[in-house]
Amino acid sequence: MALHTVTFQPGGQTASVATGTLLTEAVRQAGLDIGQPCGGQGRCGRCAVIVANGQVRRRSAIRLSAADLEAGYALACQTVVEGEAVVRLLETEQVEHRLVTDKAARKVAAPFAYDPAQHQTVRAFPLVLDAPTLSDSVDDLARLERGLAAHGVRGLEVALPLLRTLGQRLREADWQVTAIVETDTWRRPDGPPRLIELLPGAGGHHRPYGLAIDIGTTTVTVYLVDLASGEALDQAAEYNGQIARGEDVISRIIYAGKGGSPSAPAGLAELRELVLATSNALIARLTERNDVSAQHIYKATVAGNPTMLHLFLGLPPGAIRLSPYIPTVNLPQPITAAEAGLAIHPHAAVDPLPGVASYVGADITAGVLAAGLAEAEPLTLFIDVGTNGEIVLGNREWLMTCACSAGPAFEGAGVVSGMRATRGAIEEVWINSQTYEPTYRVIGGGPPRGLCGSGLISLLAELFITGVADKGGNLNVGLSPRVRAGEHGPEYVVAWAGEAALGRDIVITKVDIDNLLRAKAAIYAGFNVLAQSVGLELSQVERLLIGGSFGKYINVEKAVQIGLLPDMAWDRFQFLGNTAAMGAYLALLSREARAAVRAAAEKMTYLELSADNTFYDAFTSALFLPHTDLDRFPSVAALVAAGRAPQTETAP
Amino acid sequence: MALHTVTFQPGGQTASVATGTLLTEAVRQAGLDIGQPCGGQGRCGRCAVIVANGQVRRRSAIRLSAADLEAGYALACQTVVEGEAVVRLLETEQVEHRLVTDKAARKVAAPFAYDPAQHQTVRAFPLVLDAPTLSDSVDDLARLERGLAAHGVRGLEVALPLLRTLGQRLREADWQVTAIVETDTWRRPDGPPRLIELLPGAGGHHRPYGLAIDIGTTTVTVYLVDLASGEALDQAAEYNGQIARGEDVISRIIYAGKGGSPSAPAGLAELRELVLATSNALIARLTERNDVSAQHIYKATVAGNPTMLHLFLGLPPGAIRLSPYIPTVNLPQPITAAEAGLAIHPHAAVDPLPGVASYVGADITAGVLAAGLAEAEPLTLFIDVGTNGEIVLGNREWLMTCACSAGPAFEGAGVVSGMRATRGAIEEVWINSQTYEPTYRVIGGGPPRGLCGSGLISLLAELFITGVADKGGNLNVGLSPRVRAGEHGPEYVVAWAGEAALGRDIVITKVDIDNLLRAKAAIYAGFNVLAQSVGLELSQVERLLIGGSFGKYINVEKAVQIGLLPDMAWDRFQFLGNTAAMGAYLALLSREARAAVRAAAEKMTYLELSADNTFYDAFTSALFLPHTDLDRFPSVAALVAAGRAPQTETAP
Repeated sequence: MALHTVTFQPGGQTASVATGTLLTEAVRQAGLDIGQPCGGQGRCGRCAVIVANGQVRRRSAIRLSAADLEAGYALACQTVVEGEAVVRLLETEQVEHRLVTDKAARKVAAPFAYDPAQHQTVRAFPLVLDAPTLSDSVDDLARLERGLAAHGVRGLEVALPLLRTLGQRLREADWQVTAIVETDTWRRPDGPPRLIELLPGAGGHHRPYGLAIDIGTTTVTVYLVDLASGEALDQAAEYNGQIARGEDVISRIIYAGKGGSPSAPAGLAELRELVLATSNALIARLTERNDVSAQHIYKATVAGNPTMLHLFLGLPPGAIRLSPYIPTVNLPQPITAAEAGLAIHPHAAVDPLPGVASYVGADITAGVLAAGLAEAEPLTLFIDVGTNGEIVLGNREWLMTCACSAGPAFEGAGVVSGMRATRGAIEEVWINSQTYEPTYRVIGGGPPRGLCGSGLISLLAELFITGVADKGGNLNVGLSPRVRAGEHGPEYVVAWAGEAALGRDIVITKVDIDNLLRAKAAIYAGFNVLAQSVGLELSQVERLLIGGSFGKYINVEKAVQIGLLPDMAWDRFQFLGNTAAMGAYLALLSREARAAVRAAAEKMTYLELSADNTFYDAFTSALFLPHTDLDRFPSVAALVAAGRAPQTETAP
Repeated sequence: MALHTVTFQPGGQTASVATGTLLTEAVRQAGLDIGQPCGGQGRCGRCAVIVANGQVRRRSAIRLSAADLEAGYALACQTVVEGEAVVRLLETEQVEHRLVTDKAARKVAAPFAYDPAQHQTVRAFPLVLDAPTLSDSVDDLARLERGLAAHGVRGLEVALPLLRTLGQRLREADWQVTAIVETDTWRRPDGPPRLIELLPGAGGHHRPYGLAIDIGTTTVTVYLVDLASGEALDQAAEYNGQIARGEDVISRIIYAGKGGSPSAPAGLAELRELVLATSNALIARLTERNDVSAQHIYKATVAGNPTMLHLFLGLPPGAIRLSPYIPTVNLPQPITAAEAGLAIHPHAAVDPLPGVASYVGADITAGVLAAGLAEAEPLTLFIDVGTNGEIVLGNREWLMTCACSAGPAFEGAGVVSGMRATRGAIEEVWINSQTYEPTYRVIGGGPPRGLCGSGLISLLAELFITGVADKGGNLNVGLSPRVRAGEHGPEYVVAWAGEAALGRDIVITKVDIDNLLRAKAAIYAGFNVLAQSVGLELSQVERLLIGGSFGKYINVEKAVQIGLLPDMAWDRFQFLGNTAAMGAYLALLSREARAAVRAAAEKMTYLELSADNTFYDAFTSALFLPHTDLDRFPSVAALVAAGRAPQTETAP
């Protein structure tokens, strides 16, 4: 069979492939990578490339306009090679998180009066041991145990590889050593302590370090923590390398089941390697810029939703996706770094935090810990808006939880001009209520490339408040040149091609708006069903806590205006930032906090929305701006009544 | 550099080696193996070969007579290649243990009223689980735990590789499975149970098996045990493959430190592989002839002296040899078969039994268990005569122990015509007190090849009783043509070349006798010092238990006559056979027995003979036949007085 050379610009890499090979496969063969958030189904449009030259065939062109096609755009996952070709890869989104770049601001002081002897399970014990004699001839391990017993540490479990070097280490160090010991774990608090490392010298110069890791569907965040002081020395975040294989958990689960054999699917192995690569790159970045050896990191806690933790642990996530939605494990057992594949000390303890159910995971239990929800007096609603939307309602007496399959619309997926919250994303929009002209703020300044989640919420609210869109989300076409009938239906132009980075209009279409309405309706319906399930009304909620990396940037006012968040006094909202990472950090520092995460997981009652017959009604009622029942949103009703221009309403 | 071809007969294998290469190295390069019991120091004579032809240079010829040299004999470890050569390897000792070959006789019924539910820590639990539903959506692991809880098993530790297949196994088996679980271990009796295997079907058809392994310096013995019935289905034994690298523990320790790097010596790795190869070959033999899958073996207990267990576990044994004689660990922790390198189920529990000190190990504690010593009322002396001689004195109140570095003389090493107790070995000798002509019994019949331990004891006793040797072991040269001045001093001819298998006279020399006297004196002195250390006399001992594979074949009468065993009424002697293997078998069956081994190890007080200033006197007093103080051996004194021919005594 004849092979065709495909050349990729701008780098000039090539691949030799047979007729009918997908461009995505050719990209991979050339040693390059291309994002496939929808898993290669041609739905998301993120794998668009420009065929500069040559013979290809597009099997599908949804998401591409006639102008796009004319300009040579093609979806790599839907286009096959039929001859020599030159293909230009578009600039991929650069990983520049909105994280503060100032080093001092990345530090976090221990969030409580931290005392390693009282709170920490991984500690360094400097030991000056007696050298053996004929009259004191206990074995090496017993001698080490005797030294530790003076510190109140009884017994010692030593893995075989370490035991094999024990005698040599003790003698070479002339019996003066520092033992790094895990004194107990949440799993077996009465079990024997475990030796992680034995270092020469008893001078107190060995400092143990730890990591708090939050594996988000979109972003992985790592804190580097000094276990002696409790301080988080630094933090770093990076897009989860799995994004290229699917933007949401469902796409990832599907991808995980592909290739290889049923008992060892290649997709699962690949996704595990991708998240490990991301995590290990972050660890390398943190250790390098803080001059810490990765071999001195002896402990890690890991938060993440159940799918993320399954993929991290290499557990097949398939049953999470299909009714009745069963994970392999909600309470994973601690493993070693060598087993986990983390590039820190191989005997380090890696402790994946516990979850509750297939869609309420360790990110939420860690969040509940960080938010202090299980000790709260007032009735509190906690929402983690990430790629999914998970909700917890309750207080110190009880906790109810559910997961809303909001989809990744708020992460910019499934939206024509959507993108993640990175450089070039429009993060806030204002529309003039007379001229309908927008102004916007772009992350990092410069020309806009698309709309991120907070920009979409802001835009949708403005469209509604100014009357460009009605309560059904229908656009008032013709109201201004910006509200027009586009190729894929009605659309509003936020930025004209001339002012945009990619030379194409940045728009929001009616289809996009419907996607956003479904996402916000799913979350709001979740609030409702959760409250109703315990016989309460949403209005009885006294506090609303917002966590999650995305939640940090939500404009509450706008979120209320579109009906994503309930309408309540602003001082009852509280933004907690990345609660999953903070919870992992707390669990890293303190055995009591670690036990509290587990207690919270066990206390939380999970409500499966798909099995709840009130959910669908609540969902359809919420598919409006802000809601069918405007009485639920008095502040929005007042705003509309006061300032909104009269408009033509269209039936949804 | 010119290479020379060395051809080995009878197989015709060849090696190309440079001038100066040792023959032992050439043998190895040719893919052959040759025993080096003394570790290649030219002391033992076991690596003798015949240079049929060619150019070699003998660096040392001790242990070879002029006739030997004329016949072309050379010690491979002391001979270098200097040109083309043809070398004939002598027939190596065939591994035919004196073990019964009748299958029924190899079975051992459970030695107590065995009830797996009460005694066994590794059990099979058939489980019919409920399939998950939306209203019963606990995770897979929790569902399995729920099933086990009905059997009184709480919690479950699952290793990551097994967890990764858990969901698939449960679903493929339609939620009807058999869990193989280690419910508890001696190390962490309150720790969580551990899942070893999950098999499809809940029909009660899965039987768990176990192994009791005794790693002797000379012989490895394995019992295959049905953990459901407690019966040992079969047993097999084989020479420890390490013998070729040194016959006693000291040679092995020296070999273990050779090559590679100090932290990972190649010798250690090689010795570990050799004992694993022996063990795995035995396991294969047992599983094949009993139609059991090695993958259904889920547990093993391992007895052995500290050096053997160190080598088995890959722990460097160097510090065992040097004062103050410190092992890495006396109480090794259980590991998995995968870690150990045993070819059974990789997650099987492998439990090395505990020892007391560098030269009193798990073979002795297992023996104490098997002998019921820790529950004994009467004052009991227990001796394990293997390659070393270990002694325990005591009863239910207290236990004292010591190790006598007897050396391997009783295994036939360090003796010109010595050999192990295998086919062709003279195992018993009688000497006519008038003619001084011997008659003897050969293992397996046929012409004799040498003298094994029991043969040497028997011969030495006869030489003394008949007056061929005096109390100092000096031979009465000229008494008969068989008592002659040999090349290496006085010697007695047991078999003439014409009747011997190898065509050489089988003799015992004065040097051999001195070696044997030192060996027996070390053991007898051990008895004495141990008794004295607690203010007792040997005569107060009420029972004498003899264990060890060699002990089984000792003729007590002869052993008393040479002063190896104390002189007491025969009904106070008891032969227990391989107590180490029996103790491992008991520990395999019962958690109470396992705990008893540990309790015995902790109860035993170790006496280091090299640090005891009464030992040397006791030793020198015992360097006679039977002892300086004949009053200690009244039965022997009577025998000598009654029947012994008058003889010329020579000062020692």
